Amino acid sequence: MSEFAFNRVAFIGIGHIGSSLAHVMRRGKLAGSIIACARRQETRDAALRIGIADEVTADPAEAVKNADLVVIATPLSAYLETGKAIAGSLKPGAIVTDVGSVKALVAKELLPLLPKDVHVVPGHPIAGTENSGPESGFAEVFRNRWCILTPLPDGDATALDRVTKLWESAGMNVVTMDAEHHDMVLAITSHLPHLIAYTIVGTATDLEDTLKSEVIKFSASGFRDFTRIAASDPVMWRDIFLNNRDAVLEMLQRFTEDLTALQRAIRHGEGDKLQDLFTRTRAIRRSIVEAKQA
Amino acid sequence: MSEFAFNRVAFIGIGHIGSSLAHVMRRGKLAGSIIACARRQETRDAALRIGIADEVTADPAEAVKNADLVVIATPLSAYLETGKAIAGSLKPGAIVTDVGSVKALVAKELLPLLPKDVHVVPGHPIAGTENSGPESGFAEVFRNRWCILTPLPDGDATALDRVTKLWESAGMNVVTMDAEHHDMVLAITSHLPHLIAYTIVGTATDLEDTLKSEVIKFSASGFRDFTRIAASDPVMWRDIFLNNRDAVLEMLQRFTEDLTALQRAIRHGEGDKLQDLFTRTRAIRRSIVEAKQA
Repeated sequence: MSEFAFNRVAFIGIGHIGSSLAHVMRRGKLAGSIIACARRQETRDAALRIGIADEVTADPAEAVKNADLVVIATPLSAYLETGKAIAGSLKPGAIVTDVGSVKALVAKELLPLLPKDVHVVPGHPIAGTENSGPESGFAEVFRNRWCILTPLPDGDATALDRVTKLWESAGMNVVTMDAEHHDMVLAITSHLPHLIAYTIVGTATDLEDTLKSEVIKFSASGFRDFTRIAASDPVMWRDIFLNNRDAVLEMLQRFTEDLTALQRAIRHGEGDKLQDLFTRTRAIRRSIVEAKQA
Repeated sequence: MSEFAFNRVAFIGIGHIGSSLAHVMRRGKLAGSIIACARRQETRDAALRIGIADEVTADPAEAVKNADLVVIATPLSAYLETGKAIAGSLKPGAIVTDVGSVKALVAKELLPLLPKDVHVVPGHPIAGTENSGPESGFAEVFRNRWCILTPLPDGDATALDRVTKLWESAGMNVVTMDAEHHDMVLAITSHLPHLIAYTIVGTATDLEDTLKSEVIKFSASGFRDFTRIAASDPVMWRDIFLNNRDAVLEMLQRFTEDLTALQRAIRHGEGDKLQDLFTRTRAIRRSIVEAKQA
């Protein structure tokens, strides 16, 4: 076992990201034993079959008993219920972390429920595919991607260090930032793009039938890319929008203003305005290619 | 030479799509000789160097002399000027086709300028990458993609057949439809997605500097996909929006209504509405995967 390994790790939720992290732990011998908690029998069976858990349970309280590390990897809407369920069974000194896409709610909703003698380290590995479920996970999904940790102001330094090393061993580049700042950055880079992709694909599904069948037939590159994004997990994304409401609405407002300005430019035939924007956006793509995120 | 080859082919404009079609003609020996017309010396030099043209010129009238097939592959904003320039030099019986992304304007703007004794076959190969210029072209870009022809009501059947065979030899699946219908289908599958991608990338470029640099650093999958789309040729896309104004504004209006409804659902915490839409959009992705357009 690795020097920074955990004796016993509990996963609350073992979907795409949870199972991927469990694969990392197996590969690096980072956990003495792994227990996975899932509501559905099918998910628990899959976790055992794949070999990413030594034990499974449907009871979060049971799962966290004696665990040194608890990884909450459920949809955000289950955080409150999870916090209530595990609070009385957590081992003193245990580290509690999560992998959710919204971070301010961890301090706001989860933290107040938990005992003072555990160490909470909110985390967000920015990785994953549009697939869901324990069988879609794989260790390499994290390689060379960013992981953002949003440590609490009075958080334990050793706990932060151990969670950092865990994600680094998954091949991630780990950075820390303020939870509210994280939620704003993700609102524009991830949440708003998903909302827009969902919307336009929805707009297409509401077209008259003759037009709709041709939209599917002739889906050009733009629309096709949007449909891939709009095939992401519905519950996960519902929860993201509900739990990052203020930042998403703020970015959506800016986007709508910009779209309205473009709409006006098209209506009035203002080609220069269009060309100017389209030229500026090429530069951002170059920056992203240079930052090796493309 | 192939049985349906053209003795002499003139390209007016030899960018990404024009050069790709010229490669197809070279490969299949579909043209006795190719002359390429481009305004910029650099483009003309490139066409000769790559070997996709036997002759080059900056003068459209010169280019079309004695040509059996004229391929207009300029941005849409050059159609009017091109029509005026070539009208007096076209060979009687010549076929004039184009590769533009908007089709109603061919009958509306180009056709009235041309002599009655040429055959106009408007066309749109739905293919291409986000790259521009003659050096970005390659014959295989068309393989297994759709090509939509929008023949004129009283168009010549033989001319339509020859243009159809040309695109089929590029590996395309050729269909015909009404020009207005084409413009509506493309407005939702291609033009609106591009407009939205340009907008959101533009919204990000206007963020405060600290936020902006982190948007580039942490660009998650959604935003990254949008920046690729928003790196497309600015002039080409300016012209598409200006020339397919009514259909784009119609689809944009529907999109905006749908987005506003989602915005309201987020604001009021209506999770069911969000989840319902996100579930429906997965089905469209499946249809596209089944239609082998993914």
